[in-house]
This record gives sequence, structure tokens and C-alpha cells, in this order.
Amino acid sequence: MERVDLIIRNAIIIPVSRRIIFKGSIGILGDRIIAVGKDDDIMNRYSAERYIDARGKAALPGFVNTHMHECLMRGFCEDLPLMKWLEEVCFPKDKVFSREDMRAAALLNQLEMIKSGITTFIDIFRFQEEAAKVAMISGLRAVLSSQIIDIPFKIEDISSNENLVKNWNGKAGGRIITWFGVHSPYACTEETLLKVAELAKKYDVGVHIHISETLDEVRLIMRRYGKRPVEYLNEIGFLSDRVHAAHCVHLSKKEMKLLKDMNVSVAYNPTSNMKLASGIAPIPQLLKLGVTVGLGTDSILSNNNLDMFEEMRIGSFLQKLSRKDPSILSCYEMLRMATLEGARCLNLEHEIGSIDVGKKADLILVDLRKPHLHPIFIGDINNIVENLVYSACAADVDTTIVDGKILMENREVKTLNEEEVYEIVQKRSLSLYKRMKTVMRRE
Amino acid sequence: MERVDLIIRNAIIIPVSRRIIFKGSIGILGDRIIAVGKDDDIMNRYSAERYIDARGKAALPGFVNTHMHECLMRGFCEDLPLMKWLEEVCFPKDKVFSREDMRAAALLNQLEMIKSGITTFIDIFRFQEEAAKVAMISGLRAVLSSQIIDIPFKIEDISSNENLVKNWNGKAGGRIITWFGVHSPYACTEETLLKVAELAKKYDVGVHIHISETLDEVRLIMRRYGKRPVEYLNEIGFLSDRVHAAHCVHLSKKEMKLLKDMNVSVAYNPTSNMKLASGIAPIPQLLKLGVTVGLGTDSILSNNNLDMFEEMRIGSFLQKLSRKDPSILSCYEMLRMATLEGARCLNLEHEIGSIDVGKKADLILVDLRKPHLHPIFIGDINNIVENLVYSACAADVDTTIVDGKILMENREVKTLNEEEVYEIVQKRSLSLYKRMKTVMRRE
Repeated sequence: MERVDLIIRNAIIIPVSRRIIFKGSIGILGDRIIAVGKDDDIMNRYSAERYIDARGKAALPGFVNTHMHECLMRGFCEDLPLMKWLEEVCFPKDKVFSREDMRAAALLNQLEMIKSGITTFIDIFRFQEEAAKVAMISGLRAVLSSQIIDIPFKIEDISSNENLVKNWNGKAGGRIITWFGVHSPYACTEETLLKVAELAKKYDVGVHIHISETLDEVRLIMRRYGKRPVEYLNEIGFLSDRVHAAHCVHLSKKEMKLLKDMNVSVAYNPTSNMKLASGIAPIPQLLKLGVTVGLGTDSILSNNNLDMFEEMRIGSFLQKLSRKDPSILSCYEMLRMATLEGARCLNLEHEIGSIDVGKKADLILVDLRKPHLHPIFIGDINNIVENLVYSACAADVDTTIVDGKILMENREVKTLNEEEVYEIVQKRSLSLYKRMKTVMRRE
Repeated sequence: MERVDLIIRNAIIIPVSRRIIFKGSIGILGDRIIAVGKDDDIMNRYSAERYIDARGKAALPGFVNTHMHECLMRGFCEDLPLMKWLEEVCFPKDKVFSREDMRAAALLNQLEMIKSGITTFIDIFRFQEEAAKVAMISGLRAVLSSQIIDIPFKIEDISSNENLVKNWNGKAGGRIITWFGVHSPYACTEETLLKVAELAKKYDVGVHIHISETLDEVRLIMRRYGKRPVEYLNEIGFLSDRVHAAHCVHLSKKEMKLLKDMNVSVAYNPTSNMKLASGIAPIPQLLKLGVTVGLGTDSILSNNNLDMFEEMRIGSFLQKLSRKDPSILSCYEMLRMATLEGARCLNLEHEIGSIDVGKKADLILVDLRKPHLHPIFIGDINNIVENLVYSACAADVDTTIVDGKILMENREVKTLNEEEVYEIVQKRSLSLYKRMKTVMRRE
């Protein structure tokens, strides 16, 4: 009998990479999955320090959130027209947002992600060392990038992003990864974009960016450079397989082809695109061309939660509606997008995104003993993925494991203290609101 | 000190009909709300048999689900083109669906609704006496109607619906209400539609119907009668203030005006309309004309859950996207649609839909102590409704009360046994599947 650290027993295992295993078990040693199979087989070959009884639960790879910003404000000044929202909420916030605010934001967002079954996320925002410090404690796999902005005023700059990469990349046994991050082709100069592309190559890391989120952006870039955003980014030599682009809502056929040819991956953010009235990204067309597409929640300002189940569901339903075809973007495609394809967006497909031997033990258990997840068919006519994608929600996640470490069990978070997080969040958000008011009054 | 049965103390009360009360308490005597106010005031005037401490929770009127069918199958044969789905799933199911299946469906759906904070629902489906019997036990407020179909084959008929009305209307102290229900202008003959309108008048009850869910339906009615569905229904004399119409996705300006003039109310089912690729209902236009609009989940075949929070959120975001205006259908409008306006659709606005003295004690407590509901701002800059509508989910409902009776407390359902319901549902759904297969093979 081989000894392992943890065996998860009798789950309905949805490996994503291959067929569902009913009454399956998973052996974990250190931070890796070392065995996946029928419970009998696993129990004949392995014994463990600890067992988790997962009867009535589904085991899935943890979700990969391929686009988000760890923000502190939620439900704040909602239902405003876009320009009013940007001018009266976002800009004043950006001016007074502090390092301490970022720490509170990271605590709140990482706590929510653990409770939602997100095991890996990419953040593009401010003071990312704070996000890294929180990730050290929370236990989540974090891909962190600054959000470099030049226009209309400088916020994060290249040197702070370079310091982040130098000081943090590969920390926590590789669990913390740092990238470069540029806001967008319209908020950054050509010089910045090219410098960042060069540094990403030098440090061998990725680059995160927003592209063509709104029609206004496309029009602005057309006016400024005489071409569409993806064309412009391609012509200056910014695009490469290091680039992971959020949104990509408004693309010409030529631009879709360029994304494929340059191996740029895309984050699909359906809820945010609906809420901000941005538009509907041409995801079926991108997938047909072979572009790698992951799923993202975007920030709690524009979603307003970090529920990847809802994102899968809405992501599929929005395309069904838009293409007038209820058969498009199946629940299986959506689950793959939220896990393995997300991992591919972050160049982590060899390490995470599916329940396979040799991969990192990043997985979640979802409790199926809920009315909204019944009836449960198992065997040939099973409806497990159907129910998970089309009916489940973040609160159904029971257990969250990253690098073989249990971050949540029976919905109790082990690495962060919920009450302490709420206290910090309440204090900092009220303080941020007061500072915002000062700036708003001065203008 | 006046004696009451129950006082809910120190909640954030969202009455819907008026301003939020922070640190508020609600006094309940029998099935009625007899006091709502600041905790100090209530505690000075009343003492109670029982107190519920609702600190950290919001009290809302229970949700009114204005369109649904209590179905048994979920996550079954998903992602099919519409015709294939109808022919291979829906029609075979309709042929073999039994009274016992309906009982299991009612158990499953009513259990889920209690857990989702839905206190009143309207069902239009089969064997509604079974739904009534389950509602007697579950404690939910139920508006039940048969789904009379003539074309292409007869399913429920007028006499079974009339029996339902005769035998069940007003049962359980008025908690069970029965209506007439006709499937649609395309699945019913003119004779049936008119007979039902006449009977509804005779028994002084409402009529539920689907109108203009898909473009195909509009085309079919145009071919058959040379006019659009609402025009046709108006010209034969079917429309009146008794009629509550689901969907209404494809309407001409003239039809919208007709709905208003005839005082027909509308159920908006955004998730179902997205999933089935039906289209986007012109809700802002209907509201502008003064049409009463409620919110509905539709069935678990087309949603696939009964989560009114998600329905509010998606209902708003879909219109923001469609109208290219993030300020349209605010969270306050959505909450009103899911409660008080829903009550108005069912002619129950004097009894339910808001937390007001004299109304039935149909209300829910939502636990705000969740990461996705933080930060919490209270007082002038509060974000409670914003967070409830744009971030909460069914699982956040902690307590569900109907007619002053606690149906769920701390997420534990008191009136139905969850394990027993699952057992019945598993058995009946497998049996239904086997019967469906027989029919499918024969064809």
C-alpha cells in the first residue's frame, strides 16, 4: 500500500479532460494528484493520512477566473449611465485608492473566491504586492499584474509592475505568479505597450490587457490611429502568445483571425458585458477559429459577484439568445471554458484545469444534495454537468483545495477569518467612501 | 403591552412599498403583519410568544413567482435545437406524464421555492390537484391553473380545470387559489379560449396564458388568423383584467397598447427567454405604458433553477444590454417587480407583496453575513438593495414565512422532509424517463 496525504472518496468525479467517474476517488500527495479512479482501485493501492467522504458530492477541477480586479466597493452608485459612473465613481475612487484599501479588497475578493470554488484567478489592478501578501495567506493560486495607465493620468507604472515581477514571481512554491498588465490600447501609449511587451519577454511572463470592451473604445482607437484596436496592437508588434486579452466584444473578422494567428487568448466576461451594456462577444466565432477562450467574472463593480457557475450559465444563455440557437455553447463547453481552457489562457494547462494524475491538486467538491440539483441521473443518462452549469451556484461549493491544501471544508474557510475580513472591509470601505467624497467636492 | 405571536427583531427591513428601516422589527399575529417599525417602538408596544433575532439579516416581502410550471425533469437532454427538444423530450414526456409524477414535481419545486424565498407562485401545468395537495403541506401560497391544450393533441381540458376551481379555490384559509389556464393562442382553439374567459368571469378568478413567446408563434398566428397574437386575442374578446400573460417577447406597438388598454398583466421570464433563444421582451416599453409586469422563473426545464435573485439580476442586465443603457431597470425596480408588482399580476396586491401593516405575513430573511454581500453600507448611502439584487442568490435566504407560519428557519425546511422528497423525486424521475423511452421507441 502506497501512502498518500489525502484521499477524497466516492465522489462523482468530473475530470473535464475525460469521462465522468461515478463512485470515484482521488489520491493526493503533497501538492499533486497522484491517483484518480474507481474507489475500489484507489483503496486497493493507497492508504492516506486523511480521508474525505465525498458521497453525494461532485469533484471538479477548481475554477480559473481569467479576468477580474480585486475591488473594495460593491453595490455602490449602481444604475448610472456609463460616463456619469466613470466620472463620479471610478475616477474619484482611483485618485484616493490606497495600499491599505487594496489589502482589504484582496481579503474580501479572495475570501469570496475560496467560497465560490475559484482556485486560480488573474487580477489586473493596483498595489499588487498587497494581493500577493494576501494570497500567501489565503492559499489561492494567484496570477497578479499591475494595471498600467498613462491616459488621462498615470496610475500604476511600468517600474512598479517590474518590481512586482522581480519580487514575487514564483513565490509560495510557484503558487504566486506575476505578469505585466496594461489597461488597454486607449489608456496606454504605444511606448508603454511596447516596453511592456519587451519586459514580458525578458522575464518570460504573460501580459494581461483589456481589448475592445466597448464600441466607444473602437471608435476612439479608429480616430487616434486610423485602424481597429487589434489591428493597431498587431501592427505595433504588441501581440504574441504571451498576451491574454479581456472582453474582445467588438471584433472584425480580420481581428478575430489576427487573435488566432498571434495566439492571443481571450477572457469572456458575459455578466459584466451585459451589466455595462458593452455588447456580446463573438465567442462561438472565436472558438471556431481555434482561439483559446477562458471565462472571467470581471470585478465586483461590474458583475457584482464572483460566481463562476452563474458566469457559465449566463455565458451560454447569452450566446444562445444572440445566435438564436439553443444548442450553441453546451454546458460541457462552458465547464471546460471555466477550467481547462482558463488554465490554457494563463499558460497553466500542464499544471491545473483538470483532475488528472500529475497535475496540481486544485479541486473543489460541490454538494449535490440540494433541491435545485435534483433529480440526479447517474450512469449513461447522467445530468451532473447539466445541473452544475445550468442550475448550481457558488454556495453549493462545499470544499476548496489548492496545492493539496484544504482552504475550505463544509463551507468553513480555514485560511482566512471571515469575521476579521468583514471588519477590515467595513472599516476601509467607509474610509474610502469618505475620501472619495472629498475629491468629488473639490472638483 | 399587546400580545402577538411572533416578533422579528433588529432586521434591515425592506418594505418595498416605502423606505428601508434599519434596526427594524415586525410584529406578526396569526397570519397578518400587525406592526412594522423601529425595534424600540415595537418592543415598547408589543410582547410575543416567540422572537427571531434578525441581526445581520434583511427582511423582505417573499418573492412572487409569476410564471412557472412545476416540472420533474431537470438537466435532461440539454443544448438541443428547439424542434428536436420539443419532439424528442417534451412531447414524449407529455404523453406519459402521470398524476404521481406531478406529485413528485410539486414536492421538488415547492421545496426549492421555500429554500429560494419564493412565498407565492403561479403554476400552469398538469394534474393541479396534486400541486394543491402538496401546497396544503408545504405551506406556500399557490395560484394553480391547468394548462389546457387542444392542438396538436388534447392534454388538460376545460372540465378538469373547472373541477380544480370548484374544489380548491380558497382552500387553506385562502392560501390556495385556483385560476383557469390556457396554453396559448396557437395551442388552443378560439372556442376553448372564449369558454375559459366566460368561466373565469363566472367563478371570478384569473386566467393564465402564454403569449408571443417566440417569433415562430407570431408567424403561425399570422398565417392562421391574419393578425398578430394580441390583436387576435383582443378581437375574439379574450383579453381582460383577469388575464395574466407570460413572456410577451414579440409585440408590436399596437399590441403593447392593447395589453395596457385591456389591463392584461405580463410575466417577464428573462432566463428562459435567453436559454430557449426566444428573444428579449420589451419590458421598459411596457412599463412606460403602465402595464403591470411581474417576474417569473418559468420551469426548471428552461431556467434551470427557481432563483428569483438571479432572475432580477439577469432581467435588469439583459435590458441594459439590449437598450445599450446601464441605467435602465434599476435594482429597486427589479425588487418591486419580483414582489409587489408580481402580487398585482395575481390580483393579490392588497394582501401580499410588501411588508406593511394589515398584509399577510409572507416574508423572508436574507443573511447578509456573506463575502459577496460585503461591504454593507447602512444609513443614507446604503447599498442593501443593490447587493441583494445584483449579488445575492437563493442560498442566502435564511428564513421563509407564509401566513405567519415559519416554513424554513436557518435554511432548515420545517414543512417538507428534504430526504424524503429526494427519494420520491429520484424514483419518479427514473420511472418517467423509462416511460418516455418506450414512447420514443414506438414512434
